[in-house]
Amino acid sequence: MHNFVFHNPTKILFGRNTIDALGPESRAWGQRGLLVYGRHSIKDNGLYAQVTAGLQAAGLEIAELGGVRSNPLLSQVREGIRLAKEHQTEVIIAVGGGSVIDTAKAIGAGALVEHDVWKFFTGKKGIKQTLPVTTVLTLAASGSEMNSGMVITNDTTLEKFGFGHRLLYPKVSILDPEATFTVPPDYTAYGAIDTISHVLECYLTTADPDTPVQDRLMEGLIENAMTACERCLLDPCDYNGRANLLWTATLALNGLTAAGLGRVGFPMHLIEHSLSALYDVPHGAGLAVVILGWLQHHADTCAPRIADLGKRIFPSLGITHADQGAEQTIDEMRRWFCRMKAPVTLHDLGIPASDIPQIAENTKGLARLWRLHDYTPELVAKVLQRCL
Amino acid sequence: MHNFVFHNPTKILFGRNTIDALGPESRAWGQRGLLVYGRHSIKDNGLYAQVTAGLQAAGLEIAELGGVRSNPLLSQVREGIRLAKEHQTEVIIAVGGGSVIDTAKAIGAGALVEHDVWKFFTGKKGIKQTLPVTTVLTLAASGSEMNSGMVITNDTTLEKFGFGHRLLYPKVSILDPEATFTVPPDYTAYGAIDTISHVLECYLTTADPDTPVQDRLMEGLIENAMTACERCLLDPCDYNGRANLLWTATLALNGLTAAGLGRVGFPMHLIEHSLSALYDVPHGAGLAVVILGWLQHHADTCAPRIADLGKRIFPSLGITHADQGAEQTIDEMRRWFCRMKAPVTLHDLGIPASDIPQIAENTKGLARLWRLHDYTPELVAKVLQRCL
Repeated sequence: MHNFVFHNPTKILFGRNTIDALGPESRAWGQRGLLVYGRHSIKDNGLYAQVTAGLQAAGLEIAELGGVRSNPLLSQVREGIRLAKEHQTEVIIAVGGGSVIDTAKAIGAGALVEHDVWKFFTGKKGIKQTLPVTTVLTLAASGSEMNSGMVITNDTTLEKFGFGHRLLYPKVSILDPEATFTVPPDYTAYGAIDTISHVLECYLTTADPDTPVQDRLMEGLIENAMTACERCLLDPCDYNGRANLLWTATLALNGLTAAGLGRVGFPMHLIEHSLSALYDVPHGAGLAVVILGWLQHHADTCAPRIADLGKRIFPSLGITHADQGAEQTIDEMRRWFCRMKAPVTLHDLGIPASDIPQIAENTKGLARLWRLHDYTPELVAKVLQRCL
Repeated sequence: MHNFVFHNPTKILFGRNTIDALGPESRAWGQRGLLVYGRHSIKDNGLYAQVTAGLQAAGLEIAELGGVRSNPLLSQVREGIRLAKEHQTEVIIAVGGGSVIDTAKAIGAGALVEHDVWKFFTGKKGIKQTLPVTTVLTLAASGSEMNSGMVITNDTTLEKFGFGHRLLYPKVSILDPEATFTVPPDYTAYGAIDTISHVLECYLTTADPDTPVQDRLMEGLIENAMTACERCLLDPCDYNGRANLLWTATLALNGLTAAGLGRVGFPMHLIEHSLSALYDVPHGAGLAVVILGWLQHHADTCAPRIADLGKRIFPSLGITHADQGAEQTIDEMRRWFCRMKAPVTLHDLGIPASDIPQIAENTKGLARLWRLHDYTPELVAKVLQRCL
């Protein structure tokens, strides 16, 4: 096991009727709030009315930034920073999925500096302080509700960059499974696949072969992401199905799985970020395609590890041999993605093979920032060839 | 899944050479420190010299409370409170296992009040504030290094009481597997059994049958406690064996396993506390006996759950049927305890059957405090009959 620091200070309130706590929990961090949310869903399902009433009842003065879209944009972050400065915001309240929470985090970092917030993403400036962020989560996927990461797309340069900083943990995150009942089947599956990818990145890129504590945790999370997703697609209002998916997604990227693994990479995210920056595909849909291509490309070099995973999460395959087991595991995962109606090829995403060089070229900036030096455009193109 | 709050603010520094950080990490919380430690081991293995040099180098003035014994005593806590008040202690530094850390926590709570500290344990007073505690852990067992609990034995009344409070999380805990290389085989096994018991209490007393996220986590932790313990007994200086045991023990009782299970009880600990209060047996040794008796007593009523556990952690048993599977699981656990040279009967602990009524009677106070109303002395005596 490698050395690590684990320090996750986010307070999680999980369960039914927990959204009532948003007002007092946010008020504890300030009186002037900026409420950040997405496009239609929280107004359609009543969450917006509930949240604003609760914030007002707790004595918060609220400015609003609505309309945050998935694959969240730098231009919206800049608009939020302008609002936060204008209203002397003391606390940022995110109500939405990972895109909304990441936008809130970026606003919270950018509101306290004079320079442009993108300089944090390119590594030209370091975060020294942030505004506190509280959240109500509405999508089981990103893990941002309990981690120190954020991902934003620069809509001018078409770069989708992400990074982590210890000051970016939300102070409080409220996870009410009922707030996810209205997530449609496709985004439910994309969220589960995002969760699976977060675990796979750590499971398959660690160089430490002797981490059984983390391995059992990670295998359990993948197994649960799959079974809980199936339950939610069968019955979108299955409370425990939604609850299991939500808590699995949070645990999948809150620092626990990676603690002790040493340096892990996020090569699948590197490639997917290029896809969603250029084509605005849903992150989890892009990941479904990239996961399968990446696994195929590594079916030889990572065979024992992929087969070990398959033994645990697909016991009915009866895997006994590494090479064969890796192929069986990848095939079974593809079948599962198909059953969840997720795309499994670039073609399914409407992306032609002829675009591969451009997609690969777009990964260069992030590969440098993430120090994924092996991931040259040539290697990325090879992986993408496996996504056809 | 039940509603829950999860908020664990302890910062963990894990790995080789992390003990060097104790000075600066403690100094961040104050300048006048009280160093709490046990009897011989940290002076024998050089840890005492290393720690005191580091604390002095960081500019801390140190008073000391050494000699804390396992099943830590209220009289020692009171002595520590006297020292902390006399020296106007600002931060308490625990170097040891759970007994030392619990003593430090109790001193940290008691040093800020005028009334006797035992009133916190009997529920007559509530904790309002505590002194910050930093720790260096030397035994994989209690989980106290990353949780809000503490257990102290009143050496006048022979009551061993424990409870949790959100202000009792250590600020920083340093976990260096090398600091556990000198733990002898018996205490290594007792620590692993303590860890297993923490998971079992939650796994078997939850009333919620639909918590697969927590179940996979718990099964993995039990599996790892066993395999890591075996490695440490084969080679006490197996770094990854010690590391896996240490991290497993911490994760087994840091709030994660119980989050979402609803109300769980600690009936095995209830009964064991009576054993170690009356006979001063090592906590993990007492637990080995009580676990087996408790499982036998519940082999019928909890059969499906025990069998499910066995399917996962002992796949070679090929369990297919609940009743039979429960018995097979209990037998296999007994065999494993025996292989680890742990006691498996009251006789092995040197406790005669004729003492059962007295042991059962001693559980009454804690059963009331822990609201284990089913656990009358009559029921406890029945469980203890299974421990013969």
